[in-house]
Amino acid sequence: MHRTKVRVVEHALDANNTIARANRADFDRHQLAVVNLMSAPGAGKTSLLERALAAPLDGLRVGVLEGDVQGSYDSDRLAALHVPVAQLNTDPGFGGECHLDANMVRSALPALPLPDIDLLVIENVGNLVCPAEFRVGEDARAMVCSVTEGEDEPMKYPLMFRSCELVLINKIDLLAHLDFDLDRFLHYLDQVNPGVERLLVSARTGQGVAPWREWLQGVAQRNREAALL
Amino acid sequence: MHRTKVRVVEHALDANNTIARANRADFDRHQLAVVNLMSAPGAGKTSLLERALAAPLDGLRVGVLEGDVQGSYDSDRLAALHVPVAQLNTDPGFGGECHLDANMVRSALPALPLPDIDLLVIENVGNLVCPAEFRVGEDARAMVCSVTEGEDEPMKYPLMFRSCELVLINKIDLLAHLDFDLDRFLHYLDQVNPGVERLLVSARTGQGVAPWREWLQGVAQRNREAALL
Repeated sequence: MHRTKVRVVEHALDANNTIARANRADFDRHQLAVVNLMSAPGAGKTSLLERALAAPLDGLRVGVLEGDVQGSYDSDRLAALHVPVAQLNTDPGFGGECHLDANMVRSALPALPLPDIDLLVIENVGNLVCPAEFRVGEDARAMVCSVTEGEDEPMKYPLMFRSCELVLINKIDLLAHLDFDLDRFLHYLDQVNPGVERLLVSARTGQGVAPWREWLQGVAQRNREAALL
Repeated sequence: MHRTKVRVVEHALDANNTIARANRADFDRHQLAVVNLMSAPGAGKTSLLERALAAPLDGLRVGVLEGDVQGSYDSDRLAALHVPVAQLNTDPGFGGECHLDANMVRSALPALPLPDIDLLVIENVGNLVCPAEFRVGEDARAMVCSVTEGEDEPMKYPLMFRSCELVLINKIDLLAHLDFDLDRFLHYLDQVNPGVERLLVSARTGQGVAPWREWLQGVAQRNREAALL
């Protein structure tokens, strides 16, 4: 039974990668840079996006794809920023999918004006396990980890931390009120993803938002440069 | 493709429920009360368990089943309390399962001295979606939601909040440092699970630990009474 299960999962991941490549081809045709933003529930993905998009990003036209099990709380917040937002709910037919896969993202693309966007941020479902297993055609992956979650998160969810190009360490304004050992967290982080780029941020105070915006701009810049080669 | 997917999932849930009933029969034979403890990553399941089990629970013999994708950080912490702990890792064969199902729990039962336990607490994988979809044979479900996660968690992950008999609202000591509207959270909670038992707790200060311990004792007490009928 275990063997069967593994085969089914591998088949599902093959299919996912095929569709992710199709997404990637569409993104390339529109010269669209795509960031897959992931975290545990409540770590601050939406708040950090609100902060990043509160002012124009160096002439970049940004769009957002919001993944949630149910509801449109986050996309309603982001729509206030006057960027195109598509909401993708994962709940039909089951208690809810715990991640976005390439096919779900593909099904949502017609809802976005791709020719008018330079940078698409996909906010994944809040979860530190399965989202890391499904590529959706993105250029880069960023994750948010809140200091309220404890130091050992990198060791407990290594695939997520390992699969990202940027780790946003959020709610840093709460450090004084927590028993959180930042050095130990960084030590664990370097164990699973040595030297990965990391930013100390606070969506509440705005700390670290400038380099976070620069990182997003850098993803779009590298995408543009690659298109010229 | 969508129809196929739904059928596969329903079949998986049927199989899960069959095995959950077998688990339940084993638990009943040993007069064992079982609590399924769930939350997002880093919400404080392990810390609240440490608090609850720091002193004997009214003569109850407690055991713990620790579910993690990888590692034994949490079970190492709990073993210091001198209760039997079995570690269940979900990572073999895939990037890691994001939840415990009835068959995983069943596979771990031989590692626990069931005849010598009155109350088994199963600490699920940190995730607010899939753990709610898989019953494992438990008597009761409790979940932890940290106030750092934001007010709208019940609306975004309704199945999880709806499927629990107890909601532990943790990290209440941080309220003064957050923009968290407790009344709004409770309003959302009552929308998805009207009147569900809830406790304001802090694993850090110990606030609310006494009623949390009483709730665990109540689950075991009701299980004993049911066995006498």
